[in-house]
Amino acid sequence: MTDTPRRRGRPAGTRVGPGTRELIQLTARREFAERGYEKTSVRGIAKAAGVDPALVHHYFGTKEQVFAAAVDIAFAPALGAPQKMAEGPPEAAGERLTRFFFATWEDPATRAPLLAIMRSAMDNEAAAAVFRRLVSAQLLDRIAGFIELPDATIRAELAAAQLVGAAMLRYVLKVDPLASADVEELVRRLAPVVQQHLTGA
Amino acid sequence: MTDTPRRRGRPAGTRVGPGTRELIQLTARREFAERGYEKTSVRGIAKAAGVDPALVHHYFGTKEQVFAAAVDIAFAPALGAPQKMAEGPPEAAGERLTRFFFATWEDPATRAPLLAIMRSAMDNEAAAAVFRRLVSAQLLDRIAGFIELPDATIRAELAAAQLVGAAMLRYVLKVDPLASADVEELVRRLAPVVQQHLTGA
Repeated sequence: MTDTPRRRGRPAGTRVGPGTRELIQLTARREFAERGYEKTSVRGIAKAAGVDPALVHHYFGTKEQVFAAAVDIAFAPALGAPQKMAEGPPEAAGERLTRFFFATWEDPATRAPLLAIMRSAMDNEAAAAVFRRLVSAQLLDRIAGFIELPDATIRAELAAAQLVGAAMLRYVLKVDPLASADVEELVRRLAPVVQQHLTGA
Repeated sequence: MTDTPRRRGRPAGTRVGPGTRELIQLTARREFAERGYEKTSVRGIAKAAGVDPALVHHYFGTKEQVFAAAVDIAFAPALGAPQKMAEGPPEAAGERLTRFFFATWEDPATRAPLLAIMRSAMDNEAAAAVFRRLVSAQLLDRIAGFIELPDATIRAELAAAQLVGAAMLRYVLKVDPLASADVEELVRRLAPVVQQHLTGA
């Protein structure tokens, strides 16, 4: 614990104020989103944020760790899903998850950074690994935690696959009628399938 | 029809041989896959293929049309899906589609260009539109053609969403146990859901 980047002490000659860490994190999210993982550098993020590169390292560590922090904030709105699933009867957990998923994606302010960070994770194996760890630990494993069956994890993954695929076709590929369908219609069509994955025979 | 790029006549001073068109098409697929849509130019494709840029225009037209040709060959292996669905009883069409889908994706020689071209279509709105037209006309509409129900198209799209999402989690994000599951297990778990989308109540 004593050797983590945040404990090394602040680099000499840099000024920090309240919100500096958050400023760097938001700048990193924007830089990774715009340039992809490979073309983004800690130096470039520091320059765009108007701080010394040493300060970026001080707060976050390596480029991979800066990327993890950027993914963290892009993904934050999606992380309420397990909580939503817990708020009601298990036999309607699929519907609550489906409804929460589309509510998150329908908001352009959430969708754009989410998509951009997913795109930059497709760019590079190290970035994909960071993304995989976050999605597994914070989303899929926690959804699986609600399923009292031995194959809970693959069930959670296939339910997520249905929703992620629908988002790809609706918001990225934009094929109609899926792209212009009412969210309530999508919930009606997808909730039973999601529920089937979560708890079905 | 007389004004399409292919009818303009071959540019003076260029030599073509059998396979030149195919060479340009394969080079275009590689260039778009490596650089993304925005950073690829007709000039760059011509240079990489060792031909005059005018020849690329002669065969394919605009950059958008060159991209369409590149998507065409990357996608060709997937286009057997509607045919596969037709080869057997309708109540097992979901299983045939699911099996065909994973057989295509399991082959790395097919998967790599497919993924790369999908990634470059995520890059840019014009590229996404090219991709959308191809996927709609050659895949989704033809799958929907097998479904004798008024909502056939959205049914085909949601079935495709389930499969595309599973491919994203298995081959791109690589979350386990989905990433290392046996294809037969995936067919067993997904075919009933795909069938439900295609023909269910």
